[in-house]
Amino acid sequence: QSAVPDYESDDEEYEVQGKEVYMISDGTGWTLEHAAQAALGQFEHCLVDRACSVNTHLFSQITEVDRLMEIIRQGAQEEALVLYTLADPQMAEAAQKACEMLHVPHVNVLGPITDALQSHLGVTPSGIPRGAPGRKSTLSKQYFKRIEAVEFTIRQDDGALPKNIINADIVLTGVSRTSKTPLSTYMAQKGYKVANVPLVLGIDPPKELFEVDQDKVFGLTINPSYLKSIRLARSRTLGMVRNTRTSYADMEHIRKELEYSRQLFLENPRWPVVEVTGKAIEETAAVILRIFHERRSKHLMPRISRRY
Amino acid sequence: QSAVPDYESDDEEYEVQGKEVYMISDGTGWTLEHAAQAALGQFEHCLVDRACSVNTHLFSQITEVDRLMEIIRQGAQEEALVLYTLADPQMAEAAQKACEMLHVPHVNVLGPITDALQSHLGVTPSGIPRGAPGRKSTLSKQYFKRIEAVEFTIRQDDGALPKNIINADIVLTGVSRTSKTPLSTYMAQKGYKVANVPLVLGIDPPKELFEVDQDKVFGLTINPSYLKSIRLARSRTLGMVRNTRTSYADMEHIRKELEYSRQLFLENPRWPVVEVTGKAIEETAAVILRIFHERRSKHLMPRISRRY
Ligand SMILES: Nc1ncnc2c1ncn2[C@@H]1O[C@H](COP(=O)(O)O)[C@@H](O)[C@H]1O
Ligand SMILES: Nc1ncnc2c1ncn2[C@@H]1O[C@H](COP(=O)(O)O)[C@@H](O)[C@H]1O
Ligand SMILES: [Mg+2]
Ligand SMILES: [Mg+2]
Repeated sequence: QSAVPDYESDDEEYEVQGKEVYMISDGTGWTLEHAAQAALGQFEHCLVDRACSVNTHLFSQITEVDRLMEIIRQGAQEEALVLYTLADPQMAEAAQKACEMLHVPHVNVLGPITDALQSHLGVTPSGIPRGAPGRKSTLSKQYFKRIEAVEFTIRQDDGALPKNIINADIVLTGVSRTSKTPLSTYMAQKGYKVANVPLVLGIDPPKELFEVDQDKVFGLTINPSYLKSIRLARSRTLGMVRNTRTSYADMEHIRKELEYSRQLFLENPRWPVVEVTGKAIEETAAVILRIFHERRSKHLMPRISRRY
Repeated sequence: QSAVPDYESDDEEYEVQGKEVYMISDGTGWTLEHAAQAALGQFEHCLVDRACSVNTHLFSQITEVDRLMEIIRQGAQEEALVLYTLADPQMAEAAQKACEMLHVPHVNVLGPITDALQSHLGVTPSGIPRGAPGRKSTLSKQYFKRIEAVEFTIRQDDGALPKNIINADIVLTGVSRTSKTPLSTYMAQKGYKVANVPLVLGIDPPKELFEVDQDKVFGLTINPSYLKSIRLARSRTLGMVRNTRTSYADMEHIRKELEYSRQLFLENPRWPVVEVTGKAIEETAAVILRIFHERRSKHLMPRISRRY
């Protein structure tokens, strides 16, 4: 069934088994990676227990037709599914024709959106890949905003510089291991300045948490057994000594900490309380940003709007 | 031409002008946001000078058919283009039918990939949206790996804890404002532990930079005038005092610093030197990760492979 690649691999994540998916982009390939990951989510029931398995291969910056043909030929040998995003119409057509000729299943992932935008805007797409030589580089407002957000967010991690949280767009608070840090950097990447303030049993949070615009503070909450398993994993990674570990991941201690945070959230009813149990970072981020935008706008329907 | 929305908006990024694009997902909506942003890149020639303009609206976690219909009706009123990703086949069909009935242009963004994967794997998609109640949450290896990578990367920012860089997957080095920090957190989000070490004229880099596996060190380089404009913007944001600002963004000083880094890179020929001028963070990250994976594997064609 599945083709055996004709090369050896020492790539940790790669094994010579399962179905191949080739992703070919003239840009970074991140759009394909993102889309493929979401679509593969629909096959999780089969993927998690390895009943089936998939090897994805991302080929980025493919701007020459020869390289493109070489990859598709190899894809044909490996009986791969080929996904592609190619801005140049001649490259896209070459990919399509080669796949048809070699009987390789293929999807032009952005083609339909670009076509729809073309009719919608009444404008012809440039056909020029991102990063093509000669394209003027844009030191845009958005570029600086994002970099500033990332740097702000790193400086503010773990309750650092409480005086600065007034400058945050969003302030996250919750007990240890409610994913404050990865959530903060994920949203920073999208241009939001995020400060996170840990809640620790027996230590008062900084007064600034109650002084900043209360509309930007979000409480994070989590199921105790779920938290316990995360903290156990954490304490192992950190190689904590036995008695620190015990209280950190101890159920009794966890319940007390969560009770303390629940109480604090009750006393601060303007803070939305967001459940992180079982959610991926991007899922929690989506919930927070929806509420954030909802509060800032008068739209009837919660949404995130952006202008291009 | 473009419909005027029937509500007031105080959303900073939103203006009542231009064409509307609605994005509807039963999940986070990030796949649509990512895909739309890439596709809109093909219309940059028209968007940058505001000859045309686009307002995107992201509706996430739409799992009820009533809400879906409400949004599509509003989209019809605003003459929007509707992009959607809906895992439940009944929801996807309802979206399609409503759009057809109301003459709303629409694209099912993941439909074709999911169909192709279905044939390729010989497995039926679950039809269950991410985050649906009852789906077992996965505290996967990948989940912990990513969080650990983010936390490692933050701790190592800006040359902190040089002893630790031995534990990094990737080490970035370059003068100030070569985007080391945002690059590091971007790659950390993808699960790579990244350390970044600033190069400063007159200060020797930590010896650890030359002791770690030289295959994981990357030098960043940039065009001097481009660097100057970035540093000028930076010094304004930081409100630097005049004489610090002068040397930091002074052309003579910049040239010396870059010459120093160029020299260091020459002395360390195993470090790939990556040009960041005019590149978005994700573009530079793509270049670095391609080289990184190429060096670790024996594939004939540089690629990033991942197993699901
Ligand atoms: N800013 C942009 N300008 C032009 N094309 C872009 C832009 N961003 C992404 N694309 C195109 O969108 C597709 C996906 O991009 P990527 O996610 O970088 O692989 C590729 O065909 C890129 O060339
Ligand atoms: N892990 C997953 N499991 C199931 N479906 C997913 C997963 N990730 C994304 N999806 C689906 O893929 C589409 C895009 O997801 P999102 O990027 O969260 O909007 C939605 O229809 C999601 O329900
Ligand atoms: Mg933290
Ligand atoms: Mg930095």
